[in-house]
Amino acid sequence: MSNTLQQSMFDAIETELKQQVNRLDQPHTQPFHEMLTYHMGWTGEGAGAQAAGKRIRPLLTLLSVASIENKKEANGSNNWLHAVSLAASIELVHNFSLVHDDIQDNSELRRGRKTAWVKWGAPMAINVGDALFVIANQAALSLKAHYPAEIVVRAAEILNNCCLDLTRGQFLDMSYEERNDLTMEDYWPMIGGKTSALLSACTQIGALLGYAQEEAIENYRLFGYHLGLAFQVQDDVLGIWGDESVTGKSAASDLVEGKNSLPVLFALEKKGEFSKRWRQGPIRQDEVGYVSGLLENEGAKLYAEKTSEDLTQKALGYLKDAAPQGEAGKAILGLANTLLKRKQ
Amino acid sequence: MSNTLQQSMFDAIETELKQQVNRLDQPHTQPFHEMLTYHMGWTGEGAGAQAAGKRIRPLLTLLSVASIENKKEANGSNNWLHAVSLAASIELVHNFSLVHDDIQDNSELRRGRKTAWVKWGAPMAINVGDALFVIANQAALSLKAHYPAEIVVRAAEILNNCCLDLTRGQFLDMSYEERNDLTMEDYWPMIGGKTSALLSACTQIGALLGYAQEEAIENYRLFGYHLGLAFQVQDDVLGIWGDESVTGKSAASDLVEGKNSLPVLFALEKKGEFSKRWRQGPIRQDEVGYVSGLLENEGAKLYAEKTSEDLTQKALGYLKDAAPQGEAGKAILGLANTLLKRKQ
Repeated sequence: MSNTLQQSMFDAIETELKQQVNRLDQPHTQPFHEMLTYHMGWTGEGAGAQAAGKRIRPLLTLLSVASIENKKEANGSNNWLHAVSLAASIELVHNFSLVHDDIQDNSELRRGRKTAWVKWGAPMAINVGDALFVIANQAALSLKAHYPAEIVVRAAEILNNCCLDLTRGQFLDMSYEERNDLTMEDYWPMIGGKTSALLSACTQIGALLGYAQEEAIENYRLFGYHLGLAFQVQDDVLGIWGDESVTGKSAASDLVEGKNSLPVLFALEKKGEFSKRWRQGPIRQDEVGYVSGLLENEGAKLYAEKTSEDLTQKALGYLKDAAPQGEAGKAILGLANTLLKRKQ
Repeated sequence: MSNTLQQSMFDAIETELKQQVNRLDQPHTQPFHEMLTYHMGWTGEGAGAQAAGKRIRPLLTLLSVASIENKKEANGSNNWLHAVSLAASIELVHNFSLVHDDIQDNSELRRGRKTAWVKWGAPMAINVGDALFVIANQAALSLKAHYPAEIVVRAAEILNNCCLDLTRGQFLDMSYEERNDLTMEDYWPMIGGKTSALLSACTQIGALLGYAQEEAIENYRLFGYHLGLAFQVQDDVLGIWGDESVTGKSAASDLVEGKNSLPVLFALEKKGEFSKRWRQGPIRQDEVGYVSGLLENEGAKLYAEKTSEDLTQKALGYLKDAAPQGEAGKAILGLANTLLKRKQ
């Protein structure tokens, strides 16, 4: 049952995304259009479901819409389809940030395929990201076909406030690369922007577009925000101690890449053996077993796991307060569990 | 008189721009905020009026608002101040595109100062451009303090449609660098996106926010669009034959940079001496006199000047149809003349 609903939503999201991106499907800009459809996973080498990703954010958005039953304005049948352009907008924002991220991080692969800047050069890829963001805004504004203008403006505001948080998180992440005085306090504003802002926009705007009461909208927002924090901390743990066959990344790759993850920042504050080694320069692949062992001995793994679990409980508490209804409500919990228990 | 009005508008625009950009003036993101204020010309080495630029686009927007007297909805006193956040939005879009342009073109100087990517590296500069664009959208949405939500949505739509045109023009410009089969037909979609889209958004949204009738809004749009085309063609002429002391660029720098300007595309179609030389590779500084002479002999200068003049007349025709009123109406004509007669 739940799978049928999610499959319908997934199909509607893909159709809407393609329609939105088709704005560039014009005589003079065919190759430009193809750059976007390649990045979205629809065309080019390696295209397909794997390349497109799971569309978790727009699904979370539509499930949030559909899970509101105590609507301020009752309007009969389930109307999640009316919100699909906003769900597409969120996925486009996510992809805009991925395209620019890949340039900024010098990443050559994304979901097993060459990144846009590798295929077409950084100047073109900057423009691809810009176009994805413009279309994200256009998609959000096209909500007006089904919602009052006041709600469209509010949804677009939440979306853009979230985008500014994304740029803040990105700034912090990049600026941290040059610093060696970081503490755990520096961690939260970074992942609050990079990971939580967009997930909280999904659930907050979803509730808004489901005509939820203000208090419920706030609970949905807090659920999404803490879901993002919990997910990121867990991702940090998996990035060091995760099973390669499950995470799809080489073991401890976060250590080799010098990522300022929560376990690392925890151990840096301890100023022990790990801290000493970390400050001496990049970790080599042949050291990762030794270095991740240091982290574990200094309590960093336990601390991060405990933190992730606390945040998960907090997120689930807000979800309970939000009281999502029906099949969609159950599906939200399922999606949250999928996100948070990647080991299983 | 007109100067007093424009000065008031200029001051209001600067104040609003600073308030909008202050969204990043927060504890963790001070250096990020400073990257934006540097680019906007307010802080850092060389800050000041010269670095900030003339804010022609937001001025054109506010003058358009103020020049509407036959309002659909009369509301007493002149209300251009209500539209200032949208004017700021347009200037922020312009600056977002400049920051990304400078990375894409590898330009080291902008208005005599180091560009953002030179100062902070391309990854940070990409993020600076992204933030400027996000804030542009936030500024547009903050129109809601003074306008009905339906108008806010429509203004934001026009703005984002224009931004997609900007990315199209940018794509064409970059893709042309690798082509040697360009004709004059390829020119118009490029400058339509790169130059005209934003100027037409200024006048179109300005008229909308002045509560003009639909027909007048369309005439304002067409005025801005053709003003942009005329301005770009004239800029192309000045980029080859302009007086260095007036243009501020070294003479014929467009030739050395290999820019696909209208005179160049005109002469390439002729397949004469110029075309032969152009296809052999980059023009050296010591050849520019000879090569610009070839262009002139083949009629390219005359053609471009005539085209610019025709477009100017067309723009002024639409402006006449738009019938801007009062002091602001006169000031629009003055601003257009400033843009179009840079030699004087």
